Amino acid sequence: MSRTGRHFLQIPGPSPVPERVMRAMDRPVIDHRGPEFGALGREVLAGCRSVFQTEGPVVIYPSSGTGAWEATIVNTLSSGDRVLMFETGHFATLWRQMAARWGIEVEFVPGDWRRGVDPEIVEATLAEDRARGIKAVMVVHNETSTGVTSRVAEIRRAIDRANHPALLLVDTISSLGSADFRHDAWGVDVTVSGSQKGLMLPPGLGFTAISEKARAASRSNNLPRSYWDWEEMLKPNAGGYFPYKPATNLLYGLREAVAMLLEEGLPEVFARHQRLAAATRAAVQGWGLEVLCQEPSEYSPVLTAVLLPEGHDADAFRRIVLDDLDMSLGAGLSKLAGRVFRIGHLGECNALTLMGALSGVEMGLGAAGVPHQRGGVLAAMSSLRAGDGR
Amino acid sequence: MSRTGRHFLQIPGPSPVPERVMRAMDRPVIDHRGPEFGALGREVLAGCRSVFQTEGPVVIYPSSGTGAWEATIVNTLSSGDRVLMFETGHFATLWRQMAARWGIEVEFVPGDWRRGVDPEIVEATLAEDRARGIKAVMVVHNETSTGVTSRVAEIRRAIDRANHPALLLVDTISSLGSADFRHDAWGVDVTVSGSQKGLMLPPGLGFTAISEKARAASRSNNLPRSYWDWEEMLKPNAGGYFPYKPATNLLYGLREAVAMLLEEGLPEVFARHQRLAAATRAAVQGWGLEVLCQEPSEYSPVLTAVLLPEGHDADAFRRIVLDDLDMSLGAGLSKLAGRVFRIGHLGECNALTLMGALSGVEMGLGAAGVPHQRGGVLAAMSSLRAGDGR
Amino acid sequence: MSRTGRHFLQIPGPSPVPERVMRAMDRPVIDHRGPEFGALGREVLAGCRSVFQTEGPVVIYPSSGTGAWEATIVNTLSSGDRVLMFETGHFATLWRQMAARWGIEVEFVPGDWRRGVDPEIVEATLAEDRARGIKAVMVVHNETSTGVTSRVAEIRRAIDRANHPALLLVDTISSLGSADFRHDAWGVDVTVSGSQKGLMLPPGLGFTAISEKARAASRSNNLPRSYWDWEEMLKPNAGGYFPYKPATNLLYGLREAVAMLLEEGLPEVFARHQRLAAATRAAVQGWGLEVLCQEPSEYSPVLTAVLLPEGHDADAFRRIVLDDLDMSLGAGLSKLAGRVFRIGHLGECNALTLMGALSGVEMGLGAAGVPHQRGGVLAAMSSLRAGDGR
Amino acid sequence: MSRTGRHFLQIPGPSPVPERVMRAMDRPVIDHRGPEFGALGREVLAGCRSVFQTEGPVVIYPSSGTGAWEATIVNTLSSGDRVLMFETGHFATLWRQMAARWGIEVEFVPGDWRRGVDPEIVEATLAEDRARGIKAVMVVHNETSTGVTSRVAEIRRAIDRANHPALLLVDTISSLGSADFRHDAWGVDVTVSGSQKGLMLPPGLGFTAISEKARAASRSNNLPRSYWDWEEMLKPNAGGYFPYKPATNLLYGLREAVAMLLEEGLPEVFARHQRLAAATRAAVQGWGLEVLCQEPSEYSPVLTAVLLPEGHDADAFRRIVLDDLDMSLGAGLSKLAGRVFRIGHLGECNALTLMGALSGVEMGLGAAGVPHQRGGVLAAMSSLRAGDGR
Repeated sequence: MSRTGRHFLQIPGPSPVPERVMRAMDRPVIDHRGPEFGALGREVLAGCRSVFQTEGPVVIYPSSGTGAWEATIVNTLSSGDRVLMFETGHFATLWRQMAARWGIEVEFVPGDWRRGVDPEIVEATLAEDRARGIKAVMVVHNETSTGVTSRVAEIRRAIDRANHPALLLVDTISSLGSADFRHDAWGVDVTVSGSQKGLMLPPGLGFTAISEKARAASRSNNLPRSYWDWEEMLKPNAGGYFPYKPATNLLYGLREAVAMLLEEGLPEVFARHQRLAAATRAAVQGWGLEVLCQEPSEYSPVLTAVLLPEGHDADAFRRIVLDDLDMSLGAGLSKLAGRVFRIGHLGECNALTLMGALSGVEMGLGAAGVPHQRGGVLAAMSSLRAGDGR
Repeated sequence: MSRTGRHFLQIPGPSPVPERVMRAMDRPVIDHRGPEFGALGREVLAGCRSVFQTEGPVVIYPSSGTGAWEATIVNTLSSGDRVLMFETGHFATLWRQMAARWGIEVEFVPGDWRRGVDPEIVEATLAEDRARGIKAVMVVHNETSTGVTSRVAEIRRAIDRANHPALLLVDTISSLGSADFRHDAWGVDVTVSGSQKGLMLPPGLGFTAISEKARAASRSNNLPRSYWDWEEMLKPNAGGYFPYKPATNLLYGLREAVAMLLEEGLPEVFARHQRLAAATRAAVQGWGLEVLCQEPSEYSPVLTAVLLPEGHDADAFRRIVLDDLDMSLGAGLSKLAGRVFRIGHLGECNALTLMGALSGVEMGLGAAGVPHQRGGVLAAMSSLRAGDGR
Repeated sequence: MSRTGRHFLQIPGPSPVPERVMRAMDRPVIDHRGPEFGALGREVLAGCRSVFQTEGPVVIYPSSGTGAWEATIVNTLSSGDRVLMFETGHFATLWRQMAARWGIEVEFVPGDWRRGVDPEIVEATLAEDRARGIKAVMVVHNETSTGVTSRVAEIRRAIDRANHPALLLVDTISSLGSADFRHDAWGVDVTVSGSQKGLMLPPGLGFTAISEKARAASRSNNLPRSYWDWEEMLKPNAGGYFPYKPATNLLYGLREAVAMLLEEGLPEVFARHQRLAAATRAAVQGWGLEVLCQEPSEYSPVLTAVLLPEGHDADAFRRIVLDDLDMSLGAGLSKLAGRVFRIGHLGECNALTLMGALSGVEMGLGAAGVPHQRGGVLAAMSSLRAGDGR
Repeated sequence: MSRTGRHFLQIPGPSPVPERVMRAMDRPVIDHRGPEFGALGREVLAGCRSVFQTEGPVVIYPSSGTGAWEATIVNTLSSGDRVLMFETGHFATLWRQMAARWGIEVEFVPGDWRRGVDPEIVEATLAEDRARGIKAVMVVHNETSTGVTSRVAEIRRAIDRANHPALLLVDTISSLGSADFRHDAWGVDVTVSGSQKGLMLPPGLGFTAISEKARAASRSNNLPRSYWDWEEMLKPNAGGYFPYKPATNLLYGLREAVAMLLEEGLPEVFARHQRLAAATRAAVQGWGLEVLCQEPSEYSPVLTAVLLPEGHDADAFRRIVLDDLDMSLGAGLSKLAGRVFRIGHLGECNALTLMGALSGVEMGLGAAGVPHQRGGVLAAMSSLRAGDGR
């Protein structure tokens, strides 16, 4: 087969950038100190508050999402602080390593990478922490490496039940704008995100939404910082400006992407992702393969990780799909390397794009000699026809 | 379902314009009399000769393909001339009407819109024309309204067997760059084409490739002309220039599109279209529906027209597909209105895009209540897996 | 000096395409038979009526402006008709040649290429034409080859004073959208235009605005036509559609360009061009050179043609300007070849772009050894500062 | 006057992004773990080494230039370290403040913001530092706030003469790609830069070029870091990959921008900036105004800061220029606020763009009632004609 035509980028991010966003970014840079810029800045900062579902401030960094992880740590914690984290997958592990580099003592609850954070463990652990030594609970909302979405609202309730003052710090890098997430209503203290997934932008922007409590913590913690410092950001942000050069063209794109999300309506955006995810799981079941996530209430609306039968190399399969069908699928990361592949169904993905992608998976399974039943795509179509978006 | 994400433009042209071509067109206009323009002009004129498979001149007009139809008539025929045409579909009928407006007497061989030009009729008709009163045989290579591709090489041989001097004028508006076509080897006198199908450009350019015999005819025919006059074009074309303002940005795109076709290789481009067309027909058969074209040697590699069962309105079906799945399919034209829909699989179309489109058709048939068997998409995948591209 | 950075395209068209228009065109092609297209078509057709200042129909062709010349002739005149034309420059001469090719008998009033159409000659000639044998007066509004703008409103009054029924056919290819022009108020019967000058688009669209009288003439004239036929266009235009493939992406651009003109306001657009033209003439006078146009009431707001002193080759000067300063100036055409250069100041040109261009001319005059006084740019700045616009 | 047409962005960065770079960035995001990305990464990393004139590694961050400042500090210094810095202007002051936030003890040599770093003071200070307590000399190469370019090669020689082991850390944010700078030949240990000035990209990338000595320092210093950590970057960089999401589209643009610089040739790029700067100073002198920089050997090739006469507000002047002529000039920063304006002549600036800008300044001085002599633009043209690029 051929490599002509549109590449199917079905990794779980960066997601394809819509035409509208591309056109919006493809404009001349303007004076970052002029009045036109101020209006742009105010508009995108307000737009972010809508998307994060918060009344509080959202800080935008020229950085990757990893930078926003770091911003969260250095603005809220102090050297030697204890935090509670959960081994839900590759990215939770990386965030833990970063915390360790900053002298944070991480209590890391082990996991099998097939389910999310257990709210009962949160409650139990915090309840036992009589000395209130745990300063924060740090959770990855949607584990991009596994396709498991932790239940943040339930985690909040668990913290409340334990009546514990720990901050709740949540990574929504791969969920924001695709999976329902509510910074204020769910009592999150810092929400971390990035531009290249549900926001449908190229990589290059990191975000932190900040609660009053988190901001208060930032006034007394002791980690050194300058680039990431919230107060330095929030002062000029009031007028729509930034303390150093903002990534202007990505902000053009952000304005357009937020407009697209709000035009479609956040509830409909989330429902669409649920429908696409349900169809994908129907296909996986149709093929007789196994979805990595084992907890139905934690199925990711953003991506689906699929286990290959023992003895079959997921990377060999992905290579055939790339070479023969010009589709990029996500690799298994770290301890899942070679065992799973990941299908992204986020951002501007729609039903027919997904069906093209699932057809490619079905053809690729055949070409790679992976044992499977044909007809997963029929199950996916049935799911879509039924509007099944649980 | 939703309208987010990429629209599936699966009409038989205009075809989607590839990113590379979009980027190439998105450049400043230059001085059409300067040296940079001359180099561009020479390059695109040479590129056209490669794509038309000719050593002779190709003229590029700022016009639609319809303009190139007119150019062909006014440069080669005279008022009162007789020509032989065939009712192969909607576009053949329109070309006939145009000829009539120019005072050409058209012998129009009736047809049922389900098969192409019959070479035997060509031979018989010309053989009977002892007085050599027929000045031209005018053929639509690929009937965009029906998905039938006439056998031009065989028509040429039929003319030769009749030993008749008629010019062979061929419309390749929807075939050039998608279906094999050879201006010189097949002895075509004028090849008409347009920019918005296999050349993967927006509409706005018309083309005529010209044989020596056609050019000789243009020196003695009597139809008035100025804009379309070949000699006026060919003089400045020698230096890469044009007698009036060329559509510069479309020429930028043409340069890129020709480069893409030659990089992939014309034989592979044609084979890819055959594979996609075969898969589409396999799906139609799988659904238990009927392909309009009844002659397997004339199946179009560019589009497939599908008959709906009696009592089902193809336009209602298309509307559901557009509203629910954001895919544009081609309408039945003229006497096929409401009875067929047309699936374009041309230009930058690849296997996964086609599978997305065919999935949309299968889901749409269900949504519209059109009786069909499920699983056409499975048959298409089998066809693609088998590399079936007869 | 170097060729880095922005090329100064100061020819009198094609004019530089604004970023906004570029972005608007850089979008996917859509189905030309679908509802989204219909809305686009209706919007651009209405927009054209605003810009042509007419209540009547405007026809848009995928063609150059030359095509719109031809459309005007074949829709209104008959073989053997007599028309009155004026030798105001190169383009008037070309239009005359085209008319002759269509069998029109042209009474061509000779001219020295330094002034426009004389309304008194129009009146006198028509008054003498007792038999009313002259079917049309054909005028080039703004002669792109000379920088002379004929007084169309006065010509209309001259025709009226002669009480003559001739049609008034006007070429506004290089004036529409830059110089004041009023199809209805000035009683013009057909207004011809193109996309690549005041409309700030790439070449590729031709226009004819049509009076009732012209449309009536088209019902009885006898020239053969199909592509250019008004009635074929006007029928589908009612719904926003076209009888053959429209140049969709140029229509996207047209929509944006019309929006830009109306946002700025046509009177302000025209005043801006007057200011830039006045500044340019001030510079020419400052250099001690001669403006080609000899009639102040006919100075063009679009371009200024400048005579070089005897013995100095304008093309050698232009080549130095292109090579050393990366600016394209317009060449002298036909009998002005080598004697003049032309400075375009149309479309999205503004004061600082003009000053860059005039500085380039002043530096180029020095580099080419053309005798001149320094300081023309100072005179231009004074003119701009004074807001001098005629 | 009007706001139609091209905005003149003549601030000293962000500089206008060339069309070629815009087109290069306007492409789909790709899989950052795939083979196509690896090739891109290797190419841009090699390209950076050419532009920084180094054989050693260059690290690219998704960040502003400020982020690269921070990266330099946290990778080379330890809490409590002493460094030598110079008050050459606003940005030197900001970098000093950042160092202080990281617990660095800064010896800050006062200055009047009208000249660069004095190599003799460097030598004397280091010579006195018998205990070798000064760990680094930190210098801003081109002070964007003042238009003064410090002599880095001479500073290196001063350090060597003092036989002192201090690291030499240099900010080239506004000079790289515009002013001559040689990381290896001048013995610089860390070179900091950003994307939005001489590299002609939008903001969003930060850079550090790293000497062996700096890298060795990074292995023993004690500042905490994760995002900015060099070793984490350099490992995947070997294959063209990054430890976290790179700003892919800016890397597309970087590839193109580096290609443009190397096509023109770095020596010619630097000479062009010198010519434009000399012309600008000639204009300032012609107006009878004062260039802020008082040391001719330190005139900036990138920007020129101009002092207004006492009692005239530079910001009022700039506002008139923006409102009337649609040109952005740089503001006076911090203690220069209201007293100077800054003209950027960097990146893709060429002679005619500069002349447009200088004409705008001359017209603006008149409109704002700033006392000046007319004719600065004539002096600039003379300077350009003479090829004066001292």
